[in-house]
Amino acid sequence: MTETVDLATTPGTTTARAVGTFSADGPLEPLEIARRVVGPRDVRIDIRFCGICHSDIHFARGEWGRVPYPAVPGHEIAGVVAEVGAEVEGFAPGDRVGVGCMVNSCRECENCRDGKEQYCLAGNTQTYGSVDRDGTVTYGGYSDHVVVDQDFVLRIPDGLELDAAAPLLCAGITTYSPLRHWDAGPGKRVAVVGLGGLGHLAVKIAKALGAEVTVLSQSLRKQEAGLALGADGYFATSDDATFDELAGRFDLIVNTVSAKLDIGRFLGLLRTDGALVNVGAPPEPLPVPAFALLLQRRTFAGSAIGSIAETQEMLDFCAEHGITAEIERISADQVNEAWERVLASDVRYRFVIDNATLPAAG
Amino acid sequence: MTETVDLATTPGTTTARAVGTFSADGPLEPLEIARRVVGPRDVRIDIRFCGICHSDIHFARGEWGRVPYPAVPGHEIAGVVAEVGAEVEGFAPGDRVGVGCMVNSCRECENCRDGKEQYCLAGNTQTYGSVDRDGTVTYGGYSDHVVVDQDFVLRIPDGLELDAAAPLLCAGITTYSPLRHWDAGPGKRVAVVGLGGLGHLAVKIAKALGAEVTVLSQSLRKQEAGLALGADGYFATSDDATFDELAGRFDLIVNTVSAKLDIGRFLGLLRTDGALVNVGAPPEPLPVPAFALLLQRRTFAGSAIGSIAETQEMLDFCAEHGITAEIERISADQVNEAWERVLASDVRYRFVIDNATLPAAG
Repeated sequence: MTETVDLATTPGTTTARAVGTFSADGPLEPLEIARRVVGPRDVRIDIRFCGICHSDIHFARGEWGRVPYPAVPGHEIAGVVAEVGAEVEGFAPGDRVGVGCMVNSCRECENCRDGKEQYCLAGNTQTYGSVDRDGTVTYGGYSDHVVVDQDFVLRIPDGLELDAAAPLLCAGITTYSPLRHWDAGPGKRVAVVGLGGLGHLAVKIAKALGAEVTVLSQSLRKQEAGLALGADGYFATSDDATFDELAGRFDLIVNTVSAKLDIGRFLGLLRTDGALVNVGAPPEPLPVPAFALLLQRRTFAGSAIGSIAETQEMLDFCAEHGITAEIERISADQVNEAWERVLASDVRYRFVIDNATLPAAG
Repeated sequence: MTETVDLATTPGTTTARAVGTFSADGPLEPLEIARRVVGPRDVRIDIRFCGICHSDIHFARGEWGRVPYPAVPGHEIAGVVAEVGAEVEGFAPGDRVGVGCMVNSCRECENCRDGKEQYCLAGNTQTYGSVDRDGTVTYGGYSDHVVVDQDFVLRIPDGLELDAAAPLLCAGITTYSPLRHWDAGPGKRVAVVGLGGLGHLAVKIAKALGAEVTVLSQSLRKQEAGLALGADGYFATSDDATFDELAGRFDLIVNTVSAKLDIGRFLGLLRTDGALVNVGAPPEPLPVPAFALLLQRRTFAGSAIGSIAETQEMLDFCAEHGITAEIERISADQVNEAWERVLASDVRYRFVIDNATLPAAG
């Protein structure tokens, strides 16, 4: 169920140094990949930092479908513009920029025309493991550079450090989008389930939006850290009393945990017209008791990343409120170890690769 | 797990003739019940007609919890005012009125104060099988009269026949409320799952609201009837091709079926930001694949009846658009047979009891 891609440099491509894997169970290792040369509407970005997202692992391990190996993950990309095509407007060499989970979309469907590229009906082009509109396979940010259509390049405001801003491009927008869509703000009570890479940014963003924020974590192990991030309350979901004490309390629950939660119990924490929104998805269906929805007109929903315009809005919002991710910076040769620690939930709260440490071409 | 109530007439009560059951597996039979005398804010209603709702059966059979037998069901009540209390305003003897699923609520919680009595946080008083605020047990509309607080009495507009209007009090409002809450109207594509008592009214109301309406039924058995009700399309869910043909089509799906549907398949019929709303609830949890929610920011929700103000709005809307239920009128001695036929889905589309046929006091 795997295929390999010819790495030979072909006309119209350049070579990029990267870290990736050749199979679902192989280690991450240095390799070279082909990137397209800069087209008229393209921006070439020297990647300075790339966050490590749990999705990188699901993807590379083949857990989300067929993978065009070699797989080079990474969709939390922060860097500096190196070159722009003749028709590019708004970006110039030296600009601080980012790339998130998608690098293209059909631009013709009603969602694309409506500025919701994340829900492109033809399927948007993911930053890695997709076939782009020009037929090339996309490779992610565990790499020295990337070439991206200008419409999918974000500006990283001066106030944000590039390394700590990188995780905003996935973890940030994935939580910002549902918080905005479901109107988190003053007077609203928001709960965040799970205090990981997504959860810790959800807490910061929801707080900056003006909501009362409660963390629902399996244990109280990270309680002090959670409160330090700005949470107003912190409860352990392993304690049955939590579900009694908080019954009917929240307007919005953002669930960042992909494990199979007892959805019925979490729905019971919602007020009338409240929404429980999953931003992750466990592989198996979640059993939902319909009565828990009916009795207070509650909703169970899902949300996937955010649009390009919304991602820019999120970056500007984060700059205004001084929000970046809490990160642990690593070198490229530590990526295998970092993945193991992500799987063990042993990171506060995001690993970010220093792409200057990528090995030189062999 | 059952208890019986002393039927002896006590001070402050009058006797009402009714049809009910003394146990979960006993037949419906003539009996007498105590109703309170008309208090200052009460309206005494001579019941002319009462619809038969599937809930009546769930309740009387003890499938939804402990039942204070004898059980007298019926929450689709249409009748005429016989007497009003001294403080009653807006109702006078002779007025055509209705009573739906609730006859009281706490009036103090934020939902009651916000005009959402159906979601009363203290629990509203159901029309049957509840303990009312004065401590009396409530009995439903399979009876010759009922005494109800004026705030829970609805006006039935002149344009509506009392017998065919009765089912609007539950089946009508249960579908009208989610159709309005989720903005069914011009330019929207609405699907109705199931063409029974609720479904056939959902079709008429959604059509009158201006939406494009599609029926999703298990088979094409009722196709002609469904199109005659105003549906623009009619598809069989037993045919796999339906789910391909209608993929991503609907803004709103109102699911009137309480059976355990494959929710993931129905979610796939929704557009971006579409909602699948259950107005019934099967006893077991429904497995929901979270990816089906995430990919297009879809929601799975529930809705329970509607508020009193909204019920009045619905009745006025139905009068304006000439909407009533399609009914089969029965006499009181046919209720057992009717229940069997409801369980066999053998009714187009609602049984309505002619309460003039209730047996005289023994």
